[in-house]
Amino acid sequence: MSWTVGVDFGGTNIKIGVVTSRGRVIADAVLPTRRHATPAAFVRGLRDAVEVFQQRGGLSRRHLQGVGVGAPGLIDGDRGIIHRLVNVPGGWRGVHLQQLLEQHLKCPCAVDNDVNVIALGEFHAGAGRGTRHSVYVTLGTGVGGGLIIDGRLVRGAAGSAGEIGHTVIDPDGPRCGCGNRGCLEAFVGTAALMRAARAVIRKGQGRLPSLARQAHGRVTPALVSQAARAGDRAARRIWAEAGDYLGIGLANAVNLLSPERIVIGGGIANAWPWFAPRMRATMRALAFEAPMRACRVVQAQLGDRAGIVGAAMLIWGRTTARTR
Amino acid sequence: MSWTVGVDFGGTNIKIGVVTSRGRVIADAVLPTRRHATPAAFVRGLRDAVEVFQQRGGLSRRHLQGVGVGAPGLIDGDRGIIHRLVNVPGGWRGVHLQQLLEQHLKCPCAVDNDVNVIALGEFHAGAGRGTRHSVYVTLGTGVGGGLIIDGRLVRGAAGSAGEIGHTVIDPDGPRCGCGNRGCLEAFVGTAALMRAARAVIRKGQGRLPSLARQAHGRVTPALVSQAARAGDRAARRIWAEAGDYLGIGLANAVNLLSPERIVIGGGIANAWPWFAPRMRATMRALAFEAPMRACRVVQAQLGDRAGIVGAAMLIWGRTTARTR
Repeated sequence: MSWTVGVDFGGTNIKIGVVTSRGRVIADAVLPTRRHATPAAFVRGLRDAVEVFQQRGGLSRRHLQGVGVGAPGLIDGDRGIIHRLVNVPGGWRGVHLQQLLEQHLKCPCAVDNDVNVIALGEFHAGAGRGTRHSVYVTLGTGVGGGLIIDGRLVRGAAGSAGEIGHTVIDPDGPRCGCGNRGCLEAFVGTAALMRAARAVIRKGQGRLPSLARQAHGRVTPALVSQAARAGDRAARRIWAEAGDYLGIGLANAVNLLSPERIVIGGGIANAWPWFAPRMRATMRALAFEAPMRACRVVQAQLGDRAGIVGAAMLIWGRTTARTR
Repeated sequence: MSWTVGVDFGGTNIKIGVVTSRGRVIADAVLPTRRHATPAAFVRGLRDAVEVFQQRGGLSRRHLQGVGVGAPGLIDGDRGIIHRLVNVPGGWRGVHLQQLLEQHLKCPCAVDNDVNVIALGEFHAGAGRGTRHSVYVTLGTGVGGGLIIDGRLVRGAAGSAGEIGHTVIDPDGPRCGCGNRGCLEAFVGTAALMRAARAVIRKGQGRLPSLARQAHGRVTPALVSQAARAGDRAARRIWAEAGDYLGIGLANAVNLLSPERIVIGGGIANAWPWFAPRMRATMRALAFEAPMRACRVVQAQLGDRAGIVGAAMLIWGRTTARTR
């Protein structure tokens, strides 16, 4: 059986999995990042993991199609070079990781940033399956995106394409973490939602103030969702407004790219029931009819496996792109 | 010599040209649209023109690579179907023009909308030459766009991709022709510029009022450019503000797509010296550094030939895409 290894290189853990061409994870392992945070240690850890998979899983080395890695940071996915990592210690600057991996693992390797990788995973094996054009959007502290057009990941000239969170939807809007005003992230990122939640708490409206006290003042998106689930109007308004702004950003993507599918993932995506209706209504109001009719907006499907499966799709995608 | 015919199907004229693979127009002809406004008459006119080119130009029919057509309207470029034409009479609804042309001309044919076609022309033979990722933006009454990613025209699921003019950059902005508020077109389209010019004229500021009187009240973008060229501050302010807003729209495209080049064409593009500096400054302020550094914003090069050359590139692009 042909197999591929997908690696989700995170700030705390390195998750490694054996992934089939259909995106099924048939074996996995976890390494602590702090013990594999240099390029040499990372490669060594990966090589050992691949050997263990082989021995325990009865997998033939000859059928290993390749190893794909997704990591958080500025990465040239075309050439597999890590320019800079976020949240990972250990001097990852200008590391030709693809080349390094190929030398030590003796198989085709690929490296790209984590959001691109998840976009690819959802496209090949998740909520974007069966489409040609798919936009992935992740909602969380950061609002990121990955574009697949004609079955291929769009990296652009700088390898940075997909930054839908940093498209300006209101030049007079709130300040964004990137320094600009009115980026999509400044309206729907965790920081914006928590600002709105704290305002509600200060005003003593509804259930959020007492929930916040119970949580010892730790206000999170989950807390706002909890209040919304319980029917709290102020909490639902926070999600509804986020839905409006998300709808503007996604309508822009529909008019510009006419994707068949928009897949929404990330931590905040759990609040789907409270932001999705307004998001859809705004999209229908703003986007042209033909591309809007051709586009479905859905929740991501891969969850925690997305990083591993997507990284494996960096390898599988090369094969299947030709046969799609 | 291999040759291709490019057709620019406009509301007044049908321009037809023999185009080389490098985008040179070596012969051309013009038919009045009103006499070829039905599908049957259009195809007949085209067939006759191709025969004349052959006979007068000593071109061999055997070396005709194909005929490409660009037309204004809602067109499915993947299948060459005209859903609806703008500014052309004669019942163009659901016309399988590509199929019809192939039956009568006995060569490969292609049909797409005029903006996509110009984007393709600039990409293969104009200001976008030598790049892999290029965004074309046309400034005029409408603000349209065409995207080329990895050397291929992006049509999207509905065939409508590229509508950068109808991405919202300020939800509280002025009403757009499409019905929404704050689309890019509502800030930088001709209507928006003329609204600003008329306000200046009403206030009696600078040279615009007297220029408008000389033009018998016919206020045009050319008039505002004339005033700007003469050093008029109010006129220059109109262009500078348009540059700011265009900069927002283009910065969004840079963050989302990371194109190597953005090519600006269309009627208003003549005012380049007055809007480009502020456009660039805004882009540098808003877009991420890496994709901004990787992107050049330039003026279109093909001018009046763009429609013919681009249409021919619908055919030549199929060949050259493979060898790029």
